[in-house]
Amino acid sequence: MHGRLLLKMNASEMLSSTSIFRLQIRAFSAKFRSYRNFDRNRTTNSNRGILGCSSDTTPIRSISSATTAIMGSDEARVPPAIPPPTPPVTKFKIALCQLSVTADKERNIAHARQVIEEAAGKGAQLILLPEIWNSPYSNDSFPVYAEDIDAGGDASPSTAMLSELSRSLQITIIGGSIPERSGEKLYNTCCVFGTDGKLMAKHRKIHLFDIDIPGQMTFKESNTLTAGETPTIVDTDVGRIGIGICYDIRFQELAAIYAARGAHLLCYPGAFNMTTGPLHWELLQRARAADCQLYVATCSPARDCGSSYVAWGHSTLVGPFGEVLATTEHDEAIVISEIDYSLIEQRRSYLPFQRQRRGDLYQLIDIQRLSSTKTS
Amino acid sequence: MHGRLLLKMNASEMLSSTSIFRLQIRAFSAKFRSYRNFDRNRTTNSNRGILGCSSDTTPIRSISSATTAIMGSDEARVPPAIPPPTPPVTKFKIALCQLSVTADKERNIAHARQVIEEAAGKGAQLILLPEIWNSPYSNDSFPVYAEDIDAGGDASPSTAMLSELSRSLQITIIGGSIPERSGEKLYNTCCVFGTDGKLMAKHRKIHLFDIDIPGQMTFKESNTLTAGETPTIVDTDVGRIGIGICYDIRFQELAAIYAARGAHLLCYPGAFNMTTGPLHWELLQRARAADCQLYVATCSPARDCGSSYVAWGHSTLVGPFGEVLATTEHDEAIVISEIDYSLIEQRRSYLPFQRQRRGDLYQLIDIQRLSSTKTS
Repeated sequence: MHGRLLLKMNASEMLSSTSIFRLQIRAFSAKFRSYRNFDRNRTTNSNRGILGCSSDTTPIRSISSATTAIMGSDEARVPPAIPPPTPPVTKFKIALCQLSVTADKERNIAHARQVIEEAAGKGAQLILLPEIWNSPYSNDSFPVYAEDIDAGGDASPSTAMLSELSRSLQITIIGGSIPERSGEKLYNTCCVFGTDGKLMAKHRKIHLFDIDIPGQMTFKESNTLTAGETPTIVDTDVGRIGIGICYDIRFQELAAIYAARGAHLLCYPGAFNMTTGPLHWELLQRARAADCQLYVATCSPARDCGSSYVAWGHSTLVGPFGEVLATTEHDEAIVISEIDYSLIEQRRSYLPFQRQRRGDLYQLIDIQRLSSTKTS
Repeated sequence: MHGRLLLKMNASEMLSSTSIFRLQIRAFSAKFRSYRNFDRNRTTNSNRGILGCSSDTTPIRSISSATTAIMGSDEARVPPAIPPPTPPVTKFKIALCQLSVTADKERNIAHARQVIEEAAGKGAQLILLPEIWNSPYSNDSFPVYAEDIDAGGDASPSTAMLSELSRSLQITIIGGSIPERSGEKLYNTCCVFGTDGKLMAKHRKIHLFDIDIPGQMTFKESNTLTAGETPTIVDTDVGRIGIGICYDIRFQELAAIYAARGAHLLCYPGAFNMTTGPLHWELLQRARAADCQLYVATCSPARDCGSSYVAWGHSTLVGPFGEVLATTEHDEAIVISEIDYSLIEQRRSYLPFQRQRRGDLYQLIDIQRLSSTKTS
């Protein structure tokens, strides 16, 4: 459609950039309509395309109701937003494991195992771990503690433990993050394990934490780490979950494109610090939840005032009205709370601003989802 | 550039929508570069174009430093974000006039006059009034109290008073909002008056307040009002100010495109209610300020428990770290606080996420600014 439109243009029009861009906007509209038809008719086999989860290692679960309705009639999301699919379970317990972390990796793994078992014993079907839970959070430590996740087994004892537990306990684990080595590069990486023990997705932190507040907090992850190249959203036994790591939460666009991909829940393992924690940790979680009208869960390491990087703690679950449902202070803790996905639709019917955006004034493009979409 | 790129494509490429859209993304990049050059070289006369303020009634002040530097190197904003210009004043006092509002328009106008004079007497150089300050907030009242702002004079006594005071007191007034009649249509409209008494800009609420929380709050502005068609940002004697009215604050995209246009301050006259007020009023203000790293000011009517629509109050000024700088409860009040624009640049240097977005993963298009841009 777009191609044909362009072929009809004459040379002077082709050289008028303003016209071209107006045409592009109209062409996006045509694309939307194609996309809608495609989305209504598409089959399970193309789910990887729609979600754009290039880092997934297993096929994504079938998407059911997400394919039958389109949220809103405007064009403020490109491609258009899809509503969350009907989840396998509507109500379930999540556990945020605010782990104490030491310099002893073996201890950290054994300790995480024990805490996960305790949380599962209390009925949690979804476990969220902290950012960098198997090692100290420092540029010096990342290369020393990094594991080759893709090699698995002895090359990645941290994820081997998570895989084993998720299968034996039949739980879903959003495995916080660990330093990952892949060839010459290091990443800050979150692994998602399904109830069968398989690695469902791997999120490499997209936005590296490079900040400089003089006299308070200076840190540059980019000194050692490489940024990930893709958003990560995965269909689990406990719903469609978008993943971000810590600093990723500052970028509202990432949350918005997850919402537009039909997420029920965003999980952010994170280690805000004693400066940014009190300033922004709760604010950002509540803002993402209220703006996207979905659940947001965060999990921090427990505070260790003797470490070089002192974490804020305060792991929290926020509901789709931006309300804090469960939280804790800075000590080690397991925060267990119930999630009820039926509230997402209810909140969106009360405050229907997901359908009231002005696609004629602004449009947010999800570039990978747009690129991976085939026309009908 | 884009035209030439397209002319080089062969027919099969032209018909491949995926290729087309990949090309569009690349073409946007080319457009960005053109835009940067244009922006560096542009003159004052074209300011209306860059800001896209089609509702402005007077030329916009010269933009100085905004034209000489580009914020960030990525392409997450389309067109690319520009930094705030050097403002005429860096530090000044703002007054949020949380007015009591009655069904007597003459009294409301006389009362607002008195309060504005008091605020100016206390040193405020910028006055912000509440949403619908000259009449009750109800669909029944809007047609009765509506004024023909463009006709002016006796046809709009509310704005005539604001114009007179802004000139005589040499202050800038963001005139909350009043119901506006324009031909057959009604709008919820905010007028901005400069220190010379001239109407600098007129913002018609873009996102109408249509919500339905059963048993708590149901309101449909669209029963009587028409939505505005353009964002409004204006260069005043107290900085570059983006305007939203109440429900507009729920749409983070509007705040983000104002930030990308170089706003120092966002002003939201608003009347959240007893349901949405405690849930979201402060959260949304803090989120917009923290995400955009600029000032946000809100102004509500004082609470009148006898009216059909009970306002939450709590007019607030928020700083560029998302911190509440000044606020009040629900009674009538004048909140006076100092704004220091130098903090914007400082906060952005501390937490430089305005430059760390991933334009390769997401892009927010400001459609009117893009459309109004001419190539160099």
